Amino acid sequence: MEKNGLEEELNKINKEPYKGVRDFYPEDMFVQNYIFDVMRKIVESFGYTEYSASILEPTSLYKAKSGQEIVNEQTYTFTDRGGREVTLRPEMTPTLARMVAKRKRDLVFPLRWYSIPNMFRYERPQKGRLREHWQLNVDIFGVKSIDADVEIISLAYILMKKFGAKDNDFEIRVNSRKILNSIFRNFLNLDEEEVKNLMKLIDRKEKIGKDDFEAELSIILGEKSDAFIKILKIKNILDFSSVLPKELVESEGVKDIQILINKLRDMGIKNVIFSPGLVRGFDYYTSTVFEIYDTNPNNNRAMFGGGRYDDLLDIFGEDKIPAIGFGMGDVTIRDFLETHKLLPNHKAKVCLYICTLTDEYISHANKIAIKLRENDLNVEVDLTSKKVSDQLSLANKKGIPFVVCVGENEVKTGKYKIKNMDTGEEKEIKFDQISNFISSIKTL
Amino acid sequence: MEKNGLEEELNKINKEPYKGVRDFYPEDMFVQNYIFDVMRKIVESFGYTEYSASILEPTSLYKAKSGQEIVNEQTYTFTDRGGREVTLRPEMTPTLARMVAKRKRDLVFPLRWYSIPNMFRYERPQKGRLREHWQLNVDIFGVKSIDADVEIISLAYILMKKFGAKDNDFEIRVNSRKILNSIFRNFLNLDEEEVKNLMKLIDRKEKIGKDDFEAELSIILGEKSDAFIKILKIKNILDFSSVLPKELVESEGVKDIQILINKLRDMGIKNVIFSPGLVRGFDYYTSTVFEIYDTNPNNNRAMFGGGRYDDLLDIFGEDKIPAIGFGMGDVTIRDFLETHKLLPNHKAKVCLYICTLTDEYISHANKIAIKLRENDLNVEVDLTSKKVSDQLSLANKKGIPFVVCVGENEVKTGKYKIKNMDTGEEKEIKFDQISNFISSIKTL
Repeated sequence: MEKNGLEEELNKINKEPYKGVRDFYPEDMFVQNYIFDVMRKIVESFGYTEYSASILEPTSLYKAKSGQEIVNEQTYTFTDRGGREVTLRPEMTPTLARMVAKRKRDLVFPLRWYSIPNMFRYERPQKGRLREHWQLNVDIFGVKSIDADVEIISLAYILMKKFGAKDNDFEIRVNSRKILNSIFRNFLNLDEEEVKNLMKLIDRKEKIGKDDFEAELSIILGEKSDAFIKILKIKNILDFSSVLPKELVESEGVKDIQILINKLRDMGIKNVIFSPGLVRGFDYYTSTVFEIYDTNPNNNRAMFGGGRYDDLLDIFGEDKIPAIGFGMGDVTIRDFLETHKLLPNHKAKVCLYICTLTDEYISHANKIAIKLRENDLNVEVDLTSKKVSDQLSLANKKGIPFVVCVGENEVKTGKYKIKNMDTGEEKEIKFDQISNFISSIKTL
Repeated sequence: MEKNGLEEELNKINKEPYKGVRDFYPEDMFVQNYIFDVMRKIVESFGYTEYSASILEPTSLYKAKSGQEIVNEQTYTFTDRGGREVTLRPEMTPTLARMVAKRKRDLVFPLRWYSIPNMFRYERPQKGRLREHWQLNVDIFGVKSIDADVEIISLAYILMKKFGAKDNDFEIRVNSRKILNSIFRNFLNLDEEEVKNLMKLIDRKEKIGKDDFEAELSIILGEKSDAFIKILKIKNILDFSSVLPKELVESEGVKDIQILINKLRDMGIKNVIFSPGLVRGFDYYTSTVFEIYDTNPNNNRAMFGGGRYDDLLDIFGEDKIPAIGFGMGDVTIRDFLETHKLLPNHKAKVCLYICTLTDEYISHANKIAIKLRENDLNVEVDLTSKKVSDQLSLANKKGIPFVVCVGENEVKTGKYKIKNMDTGEEKEIKFDQISNFISSIKTL
């Protein structure tokens, strides 16, 4: 029986990836690897060492401290075949805290750890927000002093600079949960429920627009609404004294942020500003919070950020360890690099392509390729059985800089004509000089 | 109200990872990165370029060609919040085929692609078999000739050698599905059902032991059982003529494997043997199959393998493209490297640790650290606020080779005493010579 068209269509398997995740073809992987390489190089230059963990975590890990919305509505959570509730991690910090808590007694503090894990959130895919993304996580455990905050924020700054960003392309906004708490509790006199609502509202500020924001604000704050709007506009922490009572202005939170900003400026980091409306989503932050904000008028938004979470080990029944860190997502940073034309051009990793006059020389090509690879040369052997001109054009398409062709003559004499694909020049050299010849031109 | 002990216990979150997956602490990550680095270096030296994809795939992708057991009983499959059936990939080949099928018209063939993805299987965790593992996948698409088989198998061989294995530590077993098929169909006259049962039985051979194997075999094969046992014992393809009829001995499958083995031996790969009982689990293999077998008597088992799957693009309704590849798992290769003591020792990536006489010099330490990092030096600044001797002992614990201490004198003079932690020697040098000094000793 012949199948009809529809039936055949139904029997074909879809070629699309799952919704909201990405396939990485070699050209995408090149970009991804470039981003990861810069991340690794910079964080390792600060002494951070890599750790990792599985994407699958027991769901219970997220029940304590992540933002409520994330756990209840945005995770991939399911029951495994053995009845265990598991979650695809939506963020790395709970995993990190779990690992630190587990080996607390054996680890040498302070810890400087980093990881570049993938993570999942169930949400409607949109620009800059996919269901799966990768995120550099950099954290320091065991330093209570503001010097850890200085190091973490300066690391984020250096990272942006190494990606090619200029100081006026971005701005570092800092705030402290301690400052927010004293404003909420002691100045605005809010209860827990009101604080939650206000935090959520502030987080949505840029999405909903000025008018809606102020309308909703006055519902929560009543007559104190105007005073709070004044606070949100402050960019210099010294201006606090004009709007807040003296005991708040002189609180620990304010002092710490002042010291932090001064230390960063002293290191030459000038694009750091105080931002009293900065909240950050996670419940576990305890004092400093910060974010790197894109100043491009077409893309005005927070790119990434982090903060201090000194109490998180609590949830495992362990003594607290001071900790601060940040997460930088691959999707956001790629958008930024593309917008600012900061991505490098793709370059072939293979430097020599070996063509063969006929199939029977492939064995010889393989043998010389193996020897050249031992000298750290990346060498590809043509296996297409096509004519030499087609083999050459294949090498050209792949952007490989040198080609050598193997035939009777080469096998007999041990001499090879190397063609420089950029200049078209050919040079005949002995086999044992090929590596040196190519290396010398590559490093020119 | 005071909580009682049990209640408190219940409120604590478990510190263990999910069952059957691993946490990678820095020392584990060091090993993992070593393994991945060797893999990358070797496959890139053959001209393979990296691709990747999400671990989440539509479940439909696995309904066609993976082994039945894998799809039905061993995958992590669940329904997402939008009602889509999704699976954590149990292997990479279907994803790879999907990606190739999708861009078939734009890709330049032959493709040489690799990836080091993680994958999940729901099974009882045991030595060498975890629920999550990483696996190097190396594949070549678009070469029909046996030269692709030669390249892929020689790559697997070189990889083993670069990991430090000796020729007699492992053996490369090759077979062809074509040979198996002609033995099953034309010599043993089995129907499809019987072939399936026999394949499964062969796959379980080493697990169930000789006696049970032969008993079950005679149920399936009856009087032909003895002849088949003879076939399984053959290690040289030339010996086929003594047990099989001429038309089978002269079939394409046998000839191809003969050529393959000869070409590999000609390249200096001597530990390759014909293995007529070699099956490999996946349904999609079409001719050559091979595996790398550990010859250690205490660990006699297949470590990894692969094969040719020329028909797989069929399932997407695309024209076939010849393809061959293999997968090498991190758990198995790590076991092998540990057994043979082939893992390198951990070495600190930081080369200079900056101590400070008191906290007030941290700012200065940060400033010089930033400059040194610009010269490609990995530099860690002590933030512990401990006394200098404790800072030095921390640097020592971390295995950092050089330490410098910053105090009033250093800030004033711009000269620094660098301590070599191996020899204990101290040398006073100017700031701008630190990088050169350390680099020169590091490369000694």
